[in-house]
Amino acid sequence: MAQNIYDDKSFFDAYSQLKRSVEGLDGAPEWPTMRALLPDLDSLRVLDLGCGFGWFCRWAREQGAGRVVGVDLSEKMLARAKMAARDDAITYARADLESFAPNAAAFDLIYSSLALHYIADLEPLLERAFDALVAGGRIVFSVEHPIFTAPTNPGWSEDERGRITWPIDRYLEEGPRTTNWLTPGVIKQHRTIGTYVKLLLRAGFVISHLEEWAPSVDQITAHPDWANERERPPFLIVACDRA
Amino acid sequence: MAQNIYDDKSFFDAYSQLKRSVEGLDGAPEWPTMRALLPDLDSLRVLDLGCGFGWFCRWAREQGAGRVVGVDLSEKMLARAKMAARDDAITYARADLESFAPNAAAFDLIYSSLALHYIADLEPLLERAFDALVAGGRIVFSVEHPIFTAPTNPGWSEDERGRITWPIDRYLEEGPRTTNWLTPGVIKQHRTIGTYVKLLLRAGFVISHLEEWAPSVDQITAHPDWANERERPPFLIVACDRA
Repeated sequence: MAQNIYDDKSFFDAYSQLKRSVEGLDGAPEWPTMRALLPDLDSLRVLDLGCGFGWFCRWAREQGAGRVVGVDLSEKMLARAKMAARDDAITYARADLESFAPNAAAFDLIYSSLALHYIADLEPLLERAFDALVAGGRIVFSVEHPIFTAPTNPGWSEDERGRITWPIDRYLEEGPRTTNWLTPGVIKQHRTIGTYVKLLLRAGFVISHLEEWAPSVDQITAHPDWANERERPPFLIVACDRA
Repeated sequence: MAQNIYDDKSFFDAYSQLKRSVEGLDGAPEWPTMRALLPDLDSLRVLDLGCGFGWFCRWAREQGAGRVVGVDLSEKMLARAKMAARDDAITYARADLESFAPNAAAFDLIYSSLALHYIADLEPLLERAFDALVAGGRIVFSVEHPIFTAPTNPGWSEDERGRITWPIDRYLEEGPRTTNWLTPGVIKQHRTIGTYVKLLLRAGFVISHLEEWAPSVDQITAHPDWANERERPPFLIVACDRA
């Protein structure tokens, strides 16, 4: 079973104050990149793996999605998602993605934002996601980039010439990493880009887009405090199709 | 035009002494991974982009390849390749990969080992490679991993807790990097994995394999001095198909 850190009170309170929690999709700097990978949502059946507060589920409905299912392990997040809007075409379900099994060929689009790096056993989940899509369906997801998750002691460091660097180690050693993010003891699963690609191909997907995301130069002009993020990518964004 | 560092006398002399130069394919620890991605070579037409001393060209012929073309910019390397074996089915050609244009649909397999990270304008080369393959053809290549090429000052560093790390910066800043490898002033082109994937997809390829290569645990048992290589991947290995 995945760690349910989002239902930890200290974590939840801290997470709830993040820009992306308060402002929703537009508060997430990678959202324009994710959005550009989505098909026209009109009347599509959409599954959101790790839906959190339900921002994407509601947005998908605004774009004309016919039916939206949002799945998350966090009771607190789902409670807030359900409060946010009354819409019979959105179903929120509590489930552990480690074992969650959607119906076969039930969805046109699967979306997942920054959730899959919590999953220890990703291969069967990707197989179930593949089965849950109709032919021609697409999955679009983001995860923390392995450069971000690899280090034993993640963080910025100044080198002897005064340059800001992100020292990495253990990149090839896949598995859990316990970090202090918002609270101590948050467990993330480090895996390489190579492994993500291997598991997706094995599940039957065709790779359509793979991006090592960092804020654009324009975004940094608007938010100079994000500049370090271009020294190493914080997120990996992938789109795949079921042919 | 690409930098012709391999014809620089000091560089050539140092490169000639590397294990992979002396022992050939079996002297390169990533060779078993590359080899596993190759189709049965029997009677195939094979193009080697950056053939160097011609080790792979000769091996391909031993495996039954029908015709092999090896292309390199280095006169010194080609001279040695030509001396190594007399085989009318191997053609060595001197060309700059920045502009080299093979015939359309002339090859079943394109191979390239640690050459494409010297190419500044990769997109047109990948387009020409795609055109040079027949339908069902494959390209297999290795390049230095972007984690390896990104840093301003590449090298190992010990963190304050005594762990060996590889500090990275400028990962999102693609373009030339001047490094001291064998000799000073060697120019490599840094680009992200995301960009490799984007250019391959744009050229029309289907991604079949993408691996962030480092020595296996078994290889490190045999060569304990390679252990650091698992802290960050030195090479990226990719296989793509022309559908």
